[in-house]
Amino acid sequence: MTIPDRGALLYEGKGKKVYETTDPDLVRVVFKDDATAFNAQKRGTIVGKGVVNAAVTAELMRVVQEAGVETHFVERIAPDEHLVRKLKIVPVEVIVRNRAAGSFARRYGVEDGLDLNPIVVEWCLKSDELGDPPMNDATAVALGFATEEQLHGLFEGAAAVNDALIPYLEERGLDLIDFKLEFGEAPDGTLLLGDEISPDTCRFWDASTGERLDKDRFRFDLGEVEAAYQTVAARIAPEVAL
Amino acid sequence: MTIPDRGALLYEGKGKKVYETTDPDLVRVVFKDDATAFNAQKRGTIVGKGVVNAAVTAELMRVVQEAGVETHFVERIAPDEHLVRKLKIVPVEVIVRNRAAGSFARRYGVEDGLDLNPIVVEWCLKSDELGDPPMNDATAVALGFATEEQLHGLFEGAAAVNDALIPYLEERGLDLIDFKLEFGEAPDGTLLLGDEISPDTCRFWDASTGERLDKDRFRFDLGEVEAAYQTVAARIAPEVAL
Repeated sequence: MTIPDRGALLYEGKGKKVYETTDPDLVRVVFKDDATAFNAQKRGTIVGKGVVNAAVTAELMRVVQEAGVETHFVERIAPDEHLVRKLKIVPVEVIVRNRAAGSFARRYGVEDGLDLNPIVVEWCLKSDELGDPPMNDATAVALGFATEEQLHGLFEGAAAVNDALIPYLEERGLDLIDFKLEFGEAPDGTLLLGDEISPDTCRFWDASTGERLDKDRFRFDLGEVEAAYQTVAARIAPEVAL
Repeated sequence: MTIPDRGALLYEGKGKKVYETTDPDLVRVVFKDDATAFNAQKRGTIVGKGVVNAAVTAELMRVVQEAGVETHFVERIAPDEHLVRKLKIVPVEVIVRNRAAGSFARRYGVEDGLDLNPIVVEWCLKSDELGDPPMNDATAVALGFATEEQLHGLFEGAAAVNDALIPYLEERGLDLIDFKLEFGEAPDGTLLLGDEISPDTCRFWDASTGERLDKDRFRFDLGEVEAAYQTVAARIAPEVAL
């Protein structure tokens, strides 16, 4: 397809910039090397992150699309840039947890790595100002953040993404501990997976050593941050690994 | 019935002391004047609170029992003391919200008093150490705090309590904004409502003036704390009002 030209900057987030294009239904997303954590209280740069996240997301979007999950992804048009469908974002972050880790493990006083059965799917209100507070179904509906039907779609979509990613990543020696998804509506009302699927939004642990290969290395000053992103790239999108 | 003698202190909580009795299936609960808020960071005394809470709880337990909700309540055996069935407490605090208020309103950035439709029923893990964190169904089940079946029972019980209390309180000029319940299992596995239903565990607003008639007067230093408890007593259990 012809790639529509980049227009005005629509939105700059913590990890990405979104630009209008000459096609009103499409936007261009540039993945940045900037890193933030703890609701942007911690800031830094992870060299090469933009390219790794763009390439890893492109590949994982392909994997989930093949499993039948509709996504906003159209094409990776530059090493660090995607062409995607423009969505009306549902203001609900969907967190899928296969094992306890991070804030979840601390919140409930359980050990990092504890297997969760059933898996836990959580909603958080997408609000930097409020620190993305968790909420349950009734809260999301009563406060008008999502409809019952949308929540049902989010749950089904998130479970399908998890089912598609686990075996794909397992083959590449990665344990999928937890991850965050965002969904939005296409103009016709269809719910599509948006955002990204990357070491910024997933916890990936090396399946044999348990080594953290994701943004936790940045969050908790574990060192070897760039190397972790490159390891993930080497296993999922080897063409961009340095 | 013969009232079994008080035995050893089993447990002292923030607002109550629980004693063994000579009957292994029954305990005696003494309601204290001690008040705490914000996970016991704030402490004080509300003169007369123990008697008010014992009398109000006794009356409201009667109201919900009449509506078909099984409770632990047996008899008020002294102004500030109940005889109740001994329960194995389910470690889940059940919060029912008819309107947004307090931490809920702050958490989601909505105004105090906003009507919630549907009503919101939330679970919090009963843990002083962890600050009673909210949790969703999957978390409660995955971490072993409750079974799916118990959560279903908690939800049904909480909704029935709400349906019974709203009209009863409305007749007495009180708006039921939100409240916290605790449930436990009898030896035969039946789920019974336990704990208390009082101005310590409910937000009561005067239906005409919106005046706060509950522990928020203590929490937020609104003054007239004792008077608010006496107003609630006068409307629900006038025999103990001073």
